[in-house]
Amino acid sequence: MLGTWMSIGSPVIAEIAAHSGFDWLLFDLEHGNEAEAALPAQLRAISATHCKAIVRVGAIYPDLIARVLDWGAHGIMAPRINTAAEAESLVQAAHYAPRGRRGYSRSARTYGYGLNPPATSADITPPIIMAQIETIEGVQNTAAITAVDGIDVLFIGPADLQFDLQARPHLADFDYPTALETVNQIASSAGKSTGILIRDQAQLQSHRDLGFTHIAIDSDLAILRKGYQQILHPPTS
Amino acid sequence: MLGTWMSIGSPVIAEIAAHSGFDWLLFDLEHGNEAEAALPAQLRAISATHCKAIVRVGAIYPDLIARVLDWGAHGIMAPRINTAAEAESLVQAAHYAPRGRRGYSRSARTYGYGLNPPATSADITPPIIMAQIETIEGVQNTAAITAVDGIDVLFIGPADLQFDLQARPHLADFDYPTALETVNQIASSAGKSTGILIRDQAQLQSHRDLGFTHIAIDSDLAILRKGYQQILHPPTS
Amino acid sequence: MLGTWMSIGSPVIAEIAAHSGFDWLLFDLEHGNEAEAALPAQLRAISATHCKAIVRVGAIYPDLIARVLDWGAHGIMAPRINTAAEAESLVQAAHYAPRGRRGYSRSARTYGYGLNPPATSADITPPIIMAQIETIEGVQNTAAITAVDGIDVLFIGPADLQFDLQARPHLADFDYPTALETVNQIASSAGKSTGILIRDQAQLQSHRDLGFTHIAIDSDLAILRKGYQQILHPPTS
Amino acid sequence: MLGTWMSIGSPVIAEIAAHSGFDWLLFDLEHGNEAEAALPAQLRAISATHCKAIVRVGAIYPDLIARVLDWGAHGIMAPRINTAAEAESLVQAAHYAPRGRRGYSRSARTYGYGLNPPATSADITPPIIMAQIETIEGVQNTAAITAVDGIDVLFIGPADLQFDLQARPHLADFDYPTALETVNQIASSAGKSTGILIRDQAQLQSHRDLGFTHIAIDSDLAILRKGYQQILHPPTS
Amino acid sequence: MLGTWMSIGSPVIAEIAAHSGFDWLLFDLEHGNEAEAALPAQLRAISATHCKAIVRVGAIYPDLIARVLDWGAHGIMAPRINTAAEAESLVQAAHYAPRGRRGYSRSARTYGYGLNPPATSADITPPIIMAQIETIEGVQNTAAITAVDGIDVLFIGPADLQFDLQARPHLADFDYPTALETVNQIASSAGKSTGILIRDQAQLQSHRDLGFTHIAIDSDLAILRKGYQQILHPPTS
Amino acid sequence: MLGTWMSIGSPVIAEIAAHSGFDWLLFDLEHGNEAEAALPAQLRAISATHCKAIVRVGAIYPDLIARVLDWGAHGIMAPRINTAAEAESLVQAAHYAPRGRRGYSRSARTYGYGLNPPATSADITPPIIMAQIETIEGVQNTAAITAVDGIDVLFIGPADLQFDLQARPHLADFDYPTALETVNQIASSAGKSTGILIRDQAQLQSHRDLGFTHIAIDSDLAILRKGYQQILHPPTS
Ligand SMILES: [Mg+2]
Ligand SMILES: [Mg+2]
Ligand SMILES: [Mg+2]
Ligand SMILES: [Mg+2]
Ligand SMILES: [Mg+2]
Ligand SMILES: [Mg+2]
Repeated sequence: MLGTWMSIGSPVIAEIAAHSGFDWLLFDLEHGNEAEAALPAQLRAISATHCKAIVRVGAIYPDLIARVLDWGAHGIMAPRINTAAEAESLVQAAHYAPRGRRGYSRSARTYGYGLNPPATSADITPPIIMAQIETIEGVQNTAAITAVDGIDVLFIGPADLQFDLQARPHLADFDYPTALETVNQIASSAGKSTGILIRDQAQLQSHRDLGFTHIAIDSDLAILRKGYQQILHPPTS
Repeated sequence: MLGTWMSIGSPVIAEIAAHSGFDWLLFDLEHGNEAEAALPAQLRAISATHCKAIVRVGAIYPDLIARVLDWGAHGIMAPRINTAAEAESLVQAAHYAPRGRRGYSRSARTYGYGLNPPATSADITPPIIMAQIETIEGVQNTAAITAVDGIDVLFIGPADLQFDLQARPHLADFDYPTALETVNQIASSAGKSTGILIRDQAQLQSHRDLGFTHIAIDSDLAILRKGYQQILHPPTS
Repeated sequence: MLGTWMSIGSPVIAEIAAHSGFDWLLFDLEHGNEAEAALPAQLRAISATHCKAIVRVGAIYPDLIARVLDWGAHGIMAPRINTAAEAESLVQAAHYAPRGRRGYSRSARTYGYGLNPPATSADITPPIIMAQIETIEGVQNTAAITAVDGIDVLFIGPADLQFDLQARPHLADFDYPTALETVNQIASSAGKSTGILIRDQAQLQSHRDLGFTHIAIDSDLAILRKGYQQILHPPTS
Repeated sequence: MLGTWMSIGSPVIAEIAAHSGFDWLLFDLEHGNEAEAALPAQLRAISATHCKAIVRVGAIYPDLIARVLDWGAHGIMAPRINTAAEAESLVQAAHYAPRGRRGYSRSARTYGYGLNPPATSADITPPIIMAQIETIEGVQNTAAITAVDGIDVLFIGPADLQFDLQARPHLADFDYPTALETVNQIASSAGKSTGILIRDQAQLQSHRDLGFTHIAIDSDLAILRKGYQQILHPPTS
Repeated sequence: MLGTWMSIGSPVIAEIAAHSGFDWLLFDLEHGNEAEAALPAQLRAISATHCKAIVRVGAIYPDLIARVLDWGAHGIMAPRINTAAEAESLVQAAHYAPRGRRGYSRSARTYGYGLNPPATSADITPPIIMAQIETIEGVQNTAAITAVDGIDVLFIGPADLQFDLQARPHLADFDYPTALETVNQIASSAGKSTGILIRDQAQLQSHRDLGFTHIAIDSDLAILRKGYQQILHPPTS
Repeated sequence: MLGTWMSIGSPVIAEIAAHSGFDWLLFDLEHGNEAEAALPAQLRAISATHCKAIVRVGAIYPDLIARVLDWGAHGIMAPRINTAAEAESLVQAAHYAPRGRRGYSRSARTYGYGLNPPATSADITPPIIMAQIETIEGVQNTAAITAVDGIDVLFIGPADLQFDLQARPHLADFDYPTALETVNQIASSAGKSTGILIRDQAQLQSHRDLGFTHIAIDSDLAILRKGYQQILHPPTS
């Protein structure tokens, strides 16, 4: 389950990435460079492939989560899940009754605009839910978050978690590598998956060895930035 | 008061529908296919007609409600109004002080960008507020919701209400037809209106007989989907 | 080869139409309601289907024709082809050397942004070229136009051809039904196809009997307009 | 016939200007800041008023002229009309047969998307055609240009005409004020109108006295630029 | 610190205003005419100047505040700050840990897309936070709001505050002029700044004399509306 | 003078590239993935840098060339310049009288929307004109094209020139390497510059040795495509 980050917001890039062969793409509404309005065109751009679209929302807005699932996203990533209560809210936003509170429309794009509506609730494919563990509290509450029915992937936010450990060191009795191990152990015991964003293909195997299965490598923006640096400032041999 | 659903998000369609003669259009930000950014162009598209623009928001965001009213919407529909407290929040978001908390700008499009500001508060046309009754709790609390000053129309959400009755049957001691009767009776006693979305002109009279006055027939998306089916798979005579 | 007209310019509609099962869609840059800038999103919207995208350009601009083919259109329709010279210009714009003058980019969307470039010129799928016969001169020159290598379909423009016959009756010694017959006979003799836009499924068989193979039925815009009329002014029985 | 220039490309501004009471607006695709794609939203924005939309195209492209008329523009302004032949091309692009060559669609926005098609050709409102006289050749050929049937307004381009007189003084035996007089005299004799863009309300009467009837005062862009200067650098009294 | 209001949502206008010399621009997502999706283009438009971009959000959404700061806004204005708790929420949304809860991305536009990330937290420029005082409660709680660490400017909302004093006169024992004095006195004592939106350059000095330092004069929309009135209805002398 | 190709059409990418340090960017309206409407946002995105914007048009449209120069492009690249007459048309489109025919507006973005208009024609910075040599005829006519006053750079189109040599080998008595040498020799003798698009930094020095000074390395699209291949199919060591 190899993915990559869509931070620029271009349907051209989404189409290239999906056809290149990624298993999933993360469309970033949290730190990305385009607003929600740019999302539908990106979701359409990958429709000829088997690539899954995961949308990172900025916060747990039930209507936004329902809307992007209606638009055809296969899953949701939510930042800063610090408690089981937040994880529960996230799951409820993404599921219909009785598990959750999502409103239902059989004419949504996800059901072919009504050409392929689910015959019964059993035909509804549940969304993939990724909860980001990226604060000290999140790590401390990982077991409770993992236990929430419907949370599929515990996804480490490396930048934020390391930032938090530096900014509030007195609150944590663990370091970053330990946090990665802890989260993987808890998830593994509970039969849940883990994920992380890494910056380089070279880091892939070591993170797989830690137990991560849903790994995203780099972002469109960083690939370009590094590509431009290599052109303008090539390493001297 | 005959309306229709705008789910595609195109100003061309809004303009055709308004000039065709509908009394109102529902611009759907909950299950519709475009984000909020596509709304202003659609509102402008109907400005030469007497057609009212009702915007369905995804949830009771006071700032979004105020913004679309500033942009010239004539009313707001809100999904899943389950309690009187939620109805009260909805009304407060749409009204200025003292009834509500909406911020005031005399340069908003609704006041001709300042060419036609209200001389006094008495000149302000109150927005049309439609509260959706579409859960078991909503039906159970209809009387209290109806009693909230400023709620104009109780609007049934057929898909969601029927979905909920199937998903959580143990919570309800009524069926769907009874719910429609109940909501109409309560509204009628309180001098309030009721509305519903139906799928076919043929269902119009029977729903009028039930007491519904604000009826929307079909959506742009469904008219096209059915039109394409008739072309590609015409009924054999 | 059943198609339909995209006049509104919405990727939502293109996606519904393609998934409904049309063999081809006509994206109309001549009389349509959106500019060229709205085209790429519509072309992406149908990429998961086998539906062909034909783009009608407003005139024979070689760069526009090359650009929309680069963007992934499968063919070009050009209005008012009145002479063999115009037909030749159309073909040259759409083909690479030696047949034509189109510029080449292996990174265009039509080649998977470079993921699937043609190995040799033999691997290049030639575009479908539809020349509109819709003036008196066009009918008179049909044989010469048909003879141009690369012209695949002679496509009648019913509104324009009938308009022209009314506006300049002294120039023609044939009527509209005769024109349809003539064009079909000439094309048939030359092993070329013919097409036409009709307004109703009921007209399909009679036009197939005339020899038309590339028939488009109705437009998104007209389906909606007629659908709204049926809701607002239902036929009284 | 008082107008003003739309150079920014915003539907908000078009709506303010039209509701402020201008008789016509010039939507500038020649020197304006947005491409053709931004035009439909601006045309819709003024539909509730009697304000006429004149679109200045960058050159005499028949398809572009036909398209913006389809979209609902009431007229066309074309820059640098230097000869009667160019004026004739302009008129032919904007008129249907027999006068011209414009393609016909009864579903265009200008005919209410087919809700209000012309019953007969006599019901078609002819577009307003403004030919810009803004080069030395244009002034020299004014009589021939004026004589072209369908040219309604000879519209001076002050910046370009003065620029040309400075850049190629050897070609002209007249100065700028003389040119204005000449054009007005020729137009007046032929029963045609004249127009000009001026920068200030104070210049209005003197230009009316010269015979100009279609006068545009200032642009959205210049009003803002001057407004900002007055705020930041107020005249000291 | 002279600013002006961007209500139309056009990058062209933002660019003119910034290059005209304003110290700051207020991009209005509360009462403005475009949605959030139009903001990135406006922020890019002023990047060649020293002009600061302050974004007024419709409410204290932490993710929206973080997102527009990621996009390169220099500060946030929030409407209707009525209590110290609301002021505290506002500050926490805009600051990273330990002061706040904002998520961190070193690839955000504000850090040159990763070309200029902060070396340490000490290198992070804190955002400018403007809290609007525009209700009776806001005035009453000004001291507590002012005391919140991170609130930089108390910004009067003249229309709303005057509207509230008229709508709920029984709640206030002060009038509008007194409110302005009070807010300036409290802010001054606490070493904080104050700001206000005025309609005319002529009001500038009197408001500076009251203590206001962050003054915005007029809006793009009002400058145009007044400019059009002067053209169409010039004062008779 | 190191540049790179902008094929995706994103202002985010343009901003990254310009701030990374390229001397110039080629905004591609010929084979690029967005229409002209996406250009203004990209031009604004680089305004804080010294990076030059060169726009490749699809053909020599005088109005398009004038418009993108008005919008702030520093130069124009035109494809398939095969004759001196075409080169002359290109130059005339980009220059004001007396050298050319470009229309003049002092309020264009290139003049700060009127904040920085040229005082005299001597203050007008001439645009950079790059003529593409990419056909057999173009190579054969290089000397005549080079001699056209105002042509600054002869820019090889490698894909098209090699395609043409393969498609029409009988027309050429030279091969591709010889063509590069010939063009550089002719340009050098005439004191003009040459340019080319190469795919890799490793090719830079060898092309500089050939005499090329305006070299573009790779495109945004190709950098991403290759970056994704390296992630998904890393070279095995
Ligand atoms: Mg994070
Ligand atoms: Mg519902
Ligand atoms: Mg036609
Ligand atoms: Mg001019
Ligand atoms: Mg306010
Ligand atoms: Mg080329």
